[in-house]
Amino acid sequence: MSVSAALLVIGDEILSGRTKDKNIGYIAEYLTGMGIDLSEVRVVPDVPAKIIDAINTLRAEYTYLFTTGGIGPTHDDITADCVAAAFGVSIDEDERALAKLRERYTEEELTPGRRRMARIPAGADLVENPISKAPGFRIGNVITMAGVPSIMQAMLDNVAPTLEGGVKMLSASLSTGGLPEGVYAAALGEVAKAHPGVSIGSYPSFRDGGFQNEIVLRSRDAGLLEAAKVAVAACLAALRPDGASI
Amino acid sequence: MSVSAALLVIGDEILSGRTKDKNIGYIAEYLTGMGIDLSEVRVVPDVPAKIIDAINTLRAEYTYLFTTGGIGPTHDDITADCVAAAFGVSIDEDERALAKLRERYTEEELTPGRRRMARIPAGADLVENPISKAPGFRIGNVITMAGVPSIMQAMLDNVAPTLEGGVKMLSASLSTGGLPEGVYAAALGEVAKAHPGVSIGSYPSFRDGGFQNEIVLRSRDAGLLEAAKVAVAACLAALRPDGASI
Repeated sequence: MSVSAALLVIGDEILSGRTKDKNIGYIAEYLTGMGIDLSEVRVVPDVPAKIIDAINTLRAEYTYLFTTGGIGPTHDDITADCVAAAFGVSIDEDERALAKLRERYTEEELTPGRRRMARIPAGADLVENPISKAPGFRIGNVITMAGVPSIMQAMLDNVAPTLEGGVKMLSASLSTGGLPEGVYAAALGEVAKAHPGVSIGSYPSFRDGGFQNEIVLRSRDAGLLEAAKVAVAACLAALRPDGASI
Repeated sequence: MSVSAALLVIGDEILSGRTKDKNIGYIAEYLTGMGIDLSEVRVVPDVPAKIIDAINTLRAEYTYLFTTGGIGPTHDDITADCVAAAFGVSIDEDERALAKLRERYTEEELTPGRRRMARIPAGADLVENPISKAPGFRIGNVITMAGVPSIMQAMLDNVAPTLEGGVKMLSASLSTGGLPEGVYAAALGEVAKAHPGVSIGSYPSFRDGGFQNEIVLRSRDAGLLEAAKVAVAACLAALRPDGASI
């Protein structure tokens, strides 16, 4: 069974380039490690209609939807309200969330802004934030987390045990040993066609004035993966001028 | 007049976390500098229906759509075919693109895989690739670029002069001088309401065990921006225990 996920990154600051996202790659790797396929990512601005529309599209399409950003105390933090609107539920100060904030703030320090961080959609479970206390939350299949990477990472650790993990994706990689993509592309395409249970990708990177290529194979079945790896290695070896194995 | 753009990042390797995207932040900052609003980003896997659907949705909604990834020589490079399918045009080897590839490859080196990189949707203009010659292209409002960052950046430089720039977004930022978000959130929300031509965001980052906050103001009108900046500075100063100006 395959478990899928989407990620919705919320915030003008990512789209203006002022803040460089550090969460997409982290969450991608984390979910892959759990056997959950991250299948789509969207980045949207702080515009309620855009956020609500993306939440409703993505939560219908994938097993889980994660959101990052927009749950702080200021006027531009509108994610919780948008999640409530997407689910058609009310949103109000949540006693459990207020209790968490009181672990950090005195009653005097609990300003209207900070109390905003206790606004949680009705019916949601809290996701603990050990760093600054203001919680994330989960409602249905939607998990709402902070945008600050260290806090998001702690929230992800806390929510992970509650998620259904898929069958873990296995991967193998082969360096092409200097063989350029253009030389092996056609033969590799044939190998990919002959191994439908395995996803085979060719990834060039450009370094020191030349391309370095790596073939990455991914499958949930160890036997299929190994068979495809042997086929790719044979295909590359046959194309090497010296016939050396890869 | 406002000029908008979307970015479509194509590739399983980004969604698995194996490759960390380096293009979103670069393109966001680049377009902002040109006065073009990056308004949405999507990351999709190497699945034709997903790619084609995203292209058609995003090109209808924004002034420009940029794509990155999937234009190399291997079987998993399917972006050009998907762009052609999205526009309902044919795709074939393009003489202009072949001529570019011949600047780099001898006739013998021009393998079927490499010739794939000359497949260009009918009616598209080429976008030059000074690094490895295989071109990007532009058809209608869609600009298709490589995923390798150095090549994408060179392509962006080449296509930029052909784009309509908007009125450049101006920005200003203010440190809150140690004042926490929870203390100024409500007052800042009032300032934001009173300055509708200016987008005002509050951006916390977590460093050395504490939050550092910055207020960022953005507007296309220098006068409105300055007035809002003065109002934010006054609002913050009024909240500081020592009354010191920010």
